[in-house]
Amino acid sequence: MEKIRVTTVRSAPTFAHGLVRDLRVRWALDEAGLAYVADTVADRADPAYRLRQPFGMVPAFEADGQGLFETGAILHFLAEDSEALMPADRKGRAETLVWMFAALNTVEPPVWHLFLLDTQRKDEPWAAPSRPTAVSTVEQRLAALAAALGDREYLTGRFTVADILMATVLRFLRHTDLVADFPTLAAYLRRCEARPAFQKAVRDQLDDYARHAAVAA
Amino acid sequence: MEKIRVTTVRSAPTFAHGLVRDLRVRWALDEAGLAYVADTVADRADPAYRLRQPFGMVPAFEADGQGLFETGAILHFLAEDSEALMPADRKGRAETLVWMFAALNTVEPPVWHLFLLDTQRKDEPWAAPSRPTAVSTVEQRLAALAAALGDREYLTGRFTVADILMATVLRFLRHTDLVADFPTLAAYLRRCEARPAFQKAVRDQLDDYARHAAVAA
Repeated sequence: MEKIRVTTVRSAPTFAHGLVRDLRVRWALDEAGLAYVADTVADRADPAYRLRQPFGMVPAFEADGQGLFETGAILHFLAEDSEALMPADRKGRAETLVWMFAALNTVEPPVWHLFLLDTQRKDEPWAAPSRPTAVSTVEQRLAALAAALGDREYLTGRFTVADILMATVLRFLRHTDLVADFPTLAAYLRRCEARPAFQKAVRDQLDDYARHAAVAA
Repeated sequence: MEKIRVTTVRSAPTFAHGLVRDLRVRWALDEAGLAYVADTVADRADPAYRLRQPFGMVPAFEADGQGLFETGAILHFLAEDSEALMPADRKGRAETLVWMFAALNTVEPPVWHLFLLDTQRKDEPWAAPSRPTAVSTVEQRLAALAAALGDREYLTGRFTVADILMATVLRFLRHTDLVADFPTLAAYLRRCEARPAFQKAVRDQLDDYARHAAVAA
C-alpha cells in the first residue's frame, strides 16, 4: 500500500489532545510499519471535504486512490493486508470484527455520551442531573468487558486492531476513575498504551498540532 | 453454512416490536436464503449466556459451531459468503464496511440515545430538558446521511448488509417525524422495508413472541 493520506484537524482543545480519532489510524499504520502523510482540513463543512467524509468528521483516509472513512472501516482495510493487525484465517478475522464492533457499537456510545456530558455539555442544566444514569451505563459495560477480557493480554488473545479501538474508547474516560475501578481493564489499557506504535502515534498527533500552531503564529 | 442459530428474547414491550436487533440477523439470513433456528434466552445474566454474548444483549449467533455476537460482525460474517449481501471484490467490501460502521458508530449512537430518552428514560426529570440537544444531533446526522445518499437507491448503490443496519437504525425513530423531514431518507427506508426478506423477518420475530406467549399462557 502506497500514498497513504490521513486527514485530520489542525488543532484541538487540550481536553481532546491524544483523543482525536486520527490517533487510531496513525497507531494502526505504525503497528503495520506503513508510512503516511498527515494533512489537515480547514473547513469540515466544505462540500469537497464532505465527499471524502460525509459527516464532516475526522479522520478521512486515502490509500492508493481509494478513499475511506469511519475508523472501524479504515482499520479493517489496513488489517486485511497486515497480520500485525489481524490474523489471516477466517475465525481470527471474525473474532477481530466482533471486538471491533463491540468497541464501537457497545462500549463507545455510552462512554462518548459521558465524555460529551463532562466536556462540551457540562454547562447545560441537565448535564449534572443526567450524569448518574450515564455513569451507571458505562459501569455496566466496563464490568462486562472486564469479565470478558478475563486474564487475557488482549481481547482476542493476541493484539489486533480491535485493541486499538477499545483502548482509544477507554481513553475517553481518562478524566474519571471509572477504568481504574476495574484493575484488569486498567492494566489492559496500560499494556496497550505501552506499545511503541501507540506512543509514536500520540507524539506525532501532538507534534502536528504544535507545528501548525507555530506556522499560524 | 449449516446449523444456524439466532438467540433472542422471548418477549418484548410493544414499543420494541420489530426493533429488537435479532431482526437484523433474520433479515440478512432471509436475503441470503439461509435457514435458521431461532431460540430464546431465559436469563441474560446467566454466565453460560455471557460466554456467548458477554454484554448480556441479544442476539447471540452460532453457525457451524462458530459463536459470534455484535450484529455488525454477524452480518459481515454472513456477507462474506453471500454476494446477495455484499460484493465480493475488495473495493466493494471496503465500501460496505464503511457504511456498516457509519450506521453503527455515527448514526446509531445519537438515534439510540433519543430512543432511550423517549422510552425507558422518559419519566426522568432531565429527559425533556435534554431532548432538544439530542434531537439536534440526530437532525445533523440525518441531514449528512441524506446528502451522502443523494439519489442512489442504496448506500453503496446496490443493496448490502449496510442497508440492513442503516434501515434498522432509522426505524428507532419511527415514533418521531425526524425521518419524514428528509424525503429521500423516508423513501430509502420505505424501499428497504418493502423488501420481502425484511417483511418475512419482522413477521417471524412477531410470530415468535406470539408463540411464546401462547405457550406461557
